[in-house]
Amino acid sequence: MYLQYLSSDNEDKYVSATGIAKALDLGEVQVRKDLSSVSSRGKPKVGYLKQDLIEDLTAALGGDQKSSAVIVGAGKLGMALLGFEGFSAFGLDIAAAFDTDSAKIGQTVNGRPILPLDGFADYCKKNSIRIGIITVPAPAAQTVCDILTQSGITAIWNFAPVTLDVPKNVIVREENLALSLAHLKSLSNNNLL
Amino acid sequence: MYLQYLSSDNEDKYVSATGIAKALDLGEVQVRKDLSSVSSRGKPKVGYLKQDLIEDLTAALGGDQKSSAVIVGAGKLGMALLGFEGFSAFGLDIAAAFDTDSAKIGQTVNGRPILPLDGFADYCKKNSIRIGIITVPAPAAQTVCDILTQSGITAIWNFAPVTLDVPKNVIVREENLALSLAHLKSLSNNNLL
Repeated sequence: MYLQYLSSDNEDKYVSATGIAKALDLGEVQVRKDLSSVSSRGKPKVGYLKQDLIEDLTAALGGDQKSSAVIVGAGKLGMALLGFEGFSAFGLDIAAAFDTDSAKIGQTVNGRPILPLDGFADYCKKNSIRIGIITVPAPAAQTVCDILTQSGITAIWNFAPVTLDVPKNVIVREENLALSLAHLKSLSNNNLL
Repeated sequence: MYLQYLSSDNEDKYVSATGIAKALDLGEVQVRKDLSSVSSRGKPKVGYLKQDLIEDLTAALGGDQKSSAVIVGAGKLGMALLGFEGFSAFGLDIAAAFDTDSAKIGQTVNGRPILPLDGFADYCKKNSIRIGIITVPAPAAQTVCDILTQSGITAIWNFAPVTLDVPKNVIVREENLALSLAHLKSLSNNNLL
């Protein structure tokens, strides 16, 4: 959120925790704590040079270390993510997508191939891939998840509306788009009262 | 998160705050508070009939009131969301997408049309649409946002990596996919230490 705010605000050379807290409607104490945990370049009464803070936040998010991720499920959403160019700013590269549909295998999106799922484990081991994105339908998600974790994936971004069962050392981020929109709708309904 | 968990867990007829807290790795006090705020059908020592809790959570998210949303930007992500069928479970219907590209206008995805952006305000007023989804590139997002808010949209789901400037009565949910993946990556890096 901080990075997004700093990147879209183009006017000031310096930013302060107070100003950021105000703009993002957050508590100032929390913002001050967050920023000081990632950057030591703030100065009393002046704040942070915006460029310094952007650099330090990006580094904290691992933007200075390159990582590759793979997608399983080359449906509409998988294809959209495969073609998405916004990940590179954070040192992230989508290397390939995997599917079982022979009509899709062999296609490329922005130079990134769709490969057969049965070569998944070999590909991940060969390319040291640790991050997997699941965009298959719900009934297939747990099976795919098991393939991922058995292939050395330790971080999973899951778009299937299923709570995945994973080994202790694996991190899962659940991204339920239907619930996100439902939540927005409910906030908006409450807002109208 | 609760709904997702309850929908994917198929075994038990009853669920308890304790069990849910454990499964989702959340504090039990918070879970108890959350559930009792949406459902009064829990019983001491027994918990909730799972189906009751699913119904009450869905109702709290507005699943019993139908709403339509529209998408602006029929690129890869916009098209993926336009074709997505998972919203209907929460009483949400994507009515149409809008774009300025004449090559896209007139196409349909699962029966939902892509319409010209210059008819946006009329369409929203005629169909009482309050929810808009922005999937245009970052440089166009604020302009599109202004069109939305001037057309009666009061809730915006924004996928463009830009912090939008909106009137006080408008709710925005920022969905920055690149930052979400970067965050997962940084958690995963820390996890490896």
